[in-house]
Amino acid sequence: MALIVQKFGGTSVGTVERIQVVADRVVRERKAGNDMIIVVSAMSGETNRLVGLAGEISQRPAAREMDVLLSTGEQVTIALLSMALEERDCPARSFTGGQVRITTDNVHSKARIKNIDASRVRDDLDAGRVVIVAGFQGVDEQGNITTLGRGGSDTTAVAMAAALNADECQIYTDVDGVYTTDPRVVPEARRLPQITYEEMLEMASLGSKVLQIRSVEFASKYNVPLRVLSSFEEGSGTLISVEDKKMEQPLISGIAFNRDEAKLTILGVPDEPGVASRILGPVADANIEIDMIVQNVAADSTTDFTFTVHRNDFERGMEVLEQVAKELGAREVSGDDKIVKVSLVGVGMRSHAGIASKMFSTLAEESINIRMISTSEIKISVVVDEKYLELGVRALHQAFDLEQE
Amino acid sequence: MALIVQKFGGTSVGTVERIQVVADRVVRERKAGNDMIIVVSAMSGETNRLVGLAGEISQRPAAREMDVLLSTGEQVTIALLSMALEERDCPARSFTGGQVRITTDNVHSKARIKNIDASRVRDDLDAGRVVIVAGFQGVDEQGNITTLGRGGSDTTAVAMAAALNADECQIYTDVDGVYTTDPRVVPEARRLPQITYEEMLEMASLGSKVLQIRSVEFASKYNVPLRVLSSFEEGSGTLISVEDKKMEQPLISGIAFNRDEAKLTILGVPDEPGVASRILGPVADANIEIDMIVQNVAADSTTDFTFTVHRNDFERGMEVLEQVAKELGAREVSGDDKIVKVSLVGVGMRSHAGIASKMFSTLAEESINIRMISTSEIKISVVVDEKYLELGVRALHQAFDLEQE
Repeated sequence: MALIVQKFGGTSVGTVERIQVVADRVVRERKAGNDMIIVVSAMSGETNRLVGLAGEISQRPAAREMDVLLSTGEQVTIALLSMALEERDCPARSFTGGQVRITTDNVHSKARIKNIDASRVRDDLDAGRVVIVAGFQGVDEQGNITTLGRGGSDTTAVAMAAALNADECQIYTDVDGVYTTDPRVVPEARRLPQITYEEMLEMASLGSKVLQIRSVEFASKYNVPLRVLSSFEEGSGTLISVEDKKMEQPLISGIAFNRDEAKLTILGVPDEPGVASRILGPVADANIEIDMIVQNVAADSTTDFTFTVHRNDFERGMEVLEQVAKELGAREVSGDDKIVKVSLVGVGMRSHAGIASKMFSTLAEESINIRMISTSEIKISVVVDEKYLELGVRALHQAFDLEQE
Repeated sequence: MALIVQKFGGTSVGTVERIQVVADRVVRERKAGNDMIIVVSAMSGETNRLVGLAGEISQRPAAREMDVLLSTGEQVTIALLSMALEERDCPARSFTGGQVRITTDNVHSKARIKNIDASRVRDDLDAGRVVIVAGFQGVDEQGNITTLGRGGSDTTAVAMAAALNADECQIYTDVDGVYTTDPRVVPEARRLPQITYEEMLEMASLGSKVLQIRSVEFASKYNVPLRVLSSFEEGSGTLISVEDKKMEQPLISGIAFNRDEAKLTILGVPDEPGVASRILGPVADANIEIDMIVQNVAADSTTDFTFTVHRNDFERGMEVLEQVAKELGAREVSGDDKIVKVSLVGVGMRSHAGIASKMFSTLAEESINIRMISTSEIKISVVVDEKYLELGVRALHQAFDLEQE
């Protein structure tokens, strides 16, 4: 008998009808003999409704009270789903974050889980009940209600699975798995039956918004097998787990891309020790997150320095950089917010040479100019002009045979 | 510096605008130097919305889960009111029933409070914060969420006042106090500045639906001064407290009445020991609540037995009684659901004779026939034909000079 944690997001429990569908699905799985823990989000629309109420009262609602308010959303869902299960003669019991003792730090609205007291839930599982847990929420050590921030319900599910040593943590979403790339860009994109945590982290952070990075990190840390599935269609989804040694890894698992990038360059900076931090320090101080960083040495003992930021931070980043350029006596500052990042991701590239050159030549054949390159052990990213995004991704998808199993 | 507990019901916090009005009022009182605990209900309409959702899922939702569901209503209000206070630079902190440790028994949907841990709230009061508590809810000893049933928020307020030894517990409602009788029936009805717990209990149980009986009993038990006030108008309302020895008590404080009564009579029952329970036992077994009971002994060693029930239970009561009559060999069963009960209430009648005879003669002057009489230490109730209700109440109000202070 396996212990399965299933998580259903806001869309999957958005109406009473959908909650009924979820209940039917849970009952089926339960009858198959599995112990079940179900983590649910607020019904879609409910969080916005509550945020709206708070907004009518205060431009900056107290963070502690915002968590008290928002945590009611999931509490409604756990009660309704438990009722739906009991209506189907399937014993169930709901738990708020506080009731499971999901203890977090006290950073309201983006708390981090510190501990889960699995004992109470274990008793209910042993008594044959389905355990329904409110996602996204916990309590700090003083018993104040906290919320985990964006994607927090995924994190709750993984944390429950880790605390109870579950056999699998299944995340139900509105997509049926992780794809080789966005099917809206490449119709031949293929669902991946399996992918490693590392690959998923690279895919997620690069814009494949199926799972929150945090929950994947969490799953990786505690080695919880994670499965992404559709709550609307049948199918086995994508299993995210450790690298399978027995299996021949494909070279490339997928192609991620990010449309929200902008690049900033400072040219002719004196090539001295510490110059990088004197450039990037002020940018970080302005609360601008930096993604890629590339440095080239020029012939005349100066260096050129390029980095990318979120497109929304472009204007502000340019202002900071102009200031830095004056202080450092740099020659020039330039920028471009019409760029995108395209990345090949795959654990297989660790042991195979030639991936990068094949990537560059594929893009060259399409006359796509590469503006920046950055590599990691399982990823190669290039920055290209925005207009080449679709062309580039499609060419790479075909060149690496991603449409074939 | 006094400690005041204020309770605002669903109508008083029914919209964001009304929550703002409550916040303004709390800030005023706080600036006057008082420590404040505010107990709130769910925004009006919210409980019905939640009950509706549950109703779509189950005809008989699990009681435990219903409490999980409904308790979110007050939780939304405490968060919004706390935000509104903080927006006014008035430090505030919200508490769910579980967070104040309002411990109850485990009877879901009508739990009774067993204990309150005042320490946590005390710390916040000492730190100068207004404490906002969710009414209507608690947790059992296992940490399951419970609700207190109808009027539960009043009970929460009184219990908090008792636990913290507050100077006064103020219940804000949509009426501005307790009246000598219903002003819709007697326009001259006068607001009572003060009334005893006992009188309020008689008034409340007889149909003056300002406060729930349970909260008055609770206040009486712990000697918490209770004040009923309007949340929409200024005024000092009605103070409900122990009998003031220094004050000359008025003979009669008010006239209560109840339109929802029906009477059932069983005639010619053998006058033997135990006959009352053989009649009323089956009625109670049918879950019919009995209000007044009157027994007359007839000449022929039989007895007549009359009692009143809620009008909704009349048909069912008659069926039960027909059956009982057969078993006891009674002569006849009769009933009337066109009757009402009118009651004079006043602690002053303890020490004054002649109240009853004045009541009966006043009704006789208006040719109102009395069908039943029942008395207690501070109350005289009569049952009359429904059509005489307004006439009778007006005549009594005038006869006992209730329009004058």
